[in-house]
Amino acid sequence: MDKTNLSAGPAVAGVDRADVLAAARRIAADVRHTPLWRLPGRALGLDVAEVWLKLEHLQASGSFKARGMLNRLRSAQVPEAGVVIASGGNAGIAAAHAARALGVRCEVFLPEVSTPAKRARLAGLGAQVTVEGAVYPEALAACLRRQAQTGALLMHAYDQPEVVAGAGTLGVEIDADAGAPDRVLVSVGGGGLVAGLAAWYRGRSRIDALEPARAPTLHAARAAGAPVDVEVGGVAADSLGARRIGAIAWMLQAHVQGAHLLDDEAITRARRRMWADLRLAVEPAAALPLAALWEGVVRPAPRERVAVIVCGANTDPATLEA
Amino acid sequence: MDKTNLSAGPAVAGVDRADVLAAARRIAADVRHTPLWRLPGRALGLDVAEVWLKLEHLQASGSFKARGMLNRLRSAQVPEAGVVIASGGNAGIAAAHAARALGVRCEVFLPEVSTPAKRARLAGLGAQVTVEGAVYPEALAACLRRQAQTGALLMHAYDQPEVVAGAGTLGVEIDADAGAPDRVLVSVGGGGLVAGLAAWYRGRSRIDALEPARAPTLHAARAAGAPVDVEVGGVAADSLGARRIGAIAWMLQAHVQGAHLLDDEAITRARRRMWADLRLAVEPAAALPLAALWEGVVRPAPRERVAVIVCGANTDPATLEA
Repeated sequence: MDKTNLSAGPAVAGVDRADVLAAARRIAADVRHTPLWRLPGRALGLDVAEVWLKLEHLQASGSFKARGMLNRLRSAQVPEAGVVIASGGNAGIAAAHAARALGVRCEVFLPEVSTPAKRARLAGLGAQVTVEGAVYPEALAACLRRQAQTGALLMHAYDQPEVVAGAGTLGVEIDADAGAPDRVLVSVGGGGLVAGLAAWYRGRSRIDALEPARAPTLHAARAAGAPVDVEVGGVAADSLGARRIGAIAWMLQAHVQGAHLLDDEAITRARRRMWADLRLAVEPAAALPLAALWEGVVRPAPRERVAVIVCGANTDPATLEA
Repeated sequence: MDKTNLSAGPAVAGVDRADVLAAARRIAADVRHTPLWRLPGRALGLDVAEVWLKLEHLQASGSFKARGMLNRLRSAQVPEAGVVIASGGNAGIAAAHAARALGVRCEVFLPEVSTPAKRARLAGLGAQVTVEGAVYPEALAACLRRQAQTGALLMHAYDQPEVVAGAGTLGVEIDADAGAPDRVLVSVGGGGLVAGLAAWYRGRSRIDALEPARAPTLHAARAAGAPVDVEVGGVAADSLGARRIGAIAWMLQAHVQGAHLLDDEAITRARRRMWADLRLAVEPAAALPLAALWEGVVRPAPRERVAVIVCGANTDPATLEA
């Protein structure tokens, strides 16, 4: 629920393949090349030739967000004031991780509704945690005020070109390990990851975007013809609960061939099955792609090689079993 | 605690590279080729060139044991009575999994001390669960009586040539993915896995065997000059709690260059760090190799490429965090 909308401004920069490749070179020494686990579809009970599980939940910081944050930091002259962000979720954790890795200051703004556990985790990563405002929009406002005062580098969870290009580097690794799949299944919240993959694949592989029915930013934007705010809730809101799709993701959505909704029950079932059958401990957001395949929401042809992005594992492991 | 000693008899068959290769071909369609995650040592805070994490906890049945059970089943003419085993741990789960995959009957003997959760899990895999005797030796005796009556195929957790050769196929996969490492770190209980790797590597790579200080079967055998019973306990006893090292492992121990003990605190610390830093949810037994590296019990040279076998994840995920 902590993904507040921060406009990227009127002049949104695009992201292309060259940007993604440059990002990959820039962060190669900072990120983990995560495993691509290639399985025959039948090993997962699926009638497809191969499923490629990109185990990106094993990334430093526990989600793919580290890629974008590291790319933004490595692309900038970081001022003495360091970086600021308003997020208690994966983006905040990744920003704190990236700042620590590069030895710069990081201030994270959280509202009073944030949990002590989140504050402690961020503090444990060396971030300065500032609690201000009752809810996230107020924490964001405080974050923006601080940024204006200090000149710190503002980090956005998904709607900055460096963040999108960084997320796309996950596709570069898939290419290096196995080439281009026929299809890529990816979860969507604010759209930073799907945008990065859209920028990288640009039609070479079909992309299916998967959203919680209770946080349908891309669906709502497609229906309205432009990004619009949505109500967010549901089991995956902690990491996919953006209020609206990012401007950069919206620009790149021509390269996203499918968009599908999944209800909370399907997401929860898939997450539990991923633990029970595959011993992958993931957060709800990371279960949408396999939920789509197991529920028949996405039905690839039997000959297809399907890449599944397992995007994060910042979760309470006690919730993995029923 | 459920690894009772079942003598392999006086004429112990050896296991060589050809047996391991034959096993790999025999079970290729049944097992998962698990990921080998290659990381620079510094990503793990270690002064070694590379660490290769063999993510075998993602194997079907939740541990490497599926390899050996499938190889034993595929090597035999399974009688109408199916297979029998006395184990509520990883071997029992793997036997039930393998039997279901091949469509044969499986009866598992458990004593009255076994937990309802274990019985339910095995029944959920389609096994016929028979509770007989107060403790494991009595359940094993009942299992052996049943085998004598019905002619069912007896499965042993670690001390049968097909089981050892099956475990060794994990090394064949490492070779295929990355070649031979300089060193392999592997946990030891009854010794089926270390024996399989010893048969496969035979000195090509150094093998360091890691045992809980409270279940030191290999150490005790080396001290006594022959396999002897040990008292078992500690955090990893559920999967490494064999009473004595297997006869086959003992025959192959010339190819095991190092043997080290780890206390429960080091094992628990490493298991929690594997979750906190790497998002690998594993059972205590699977944490011994990284515990050995993180604690400095094993100190490879800086140039080395070190393979770490992450052997199982049949664990309550609620225990991953402190």
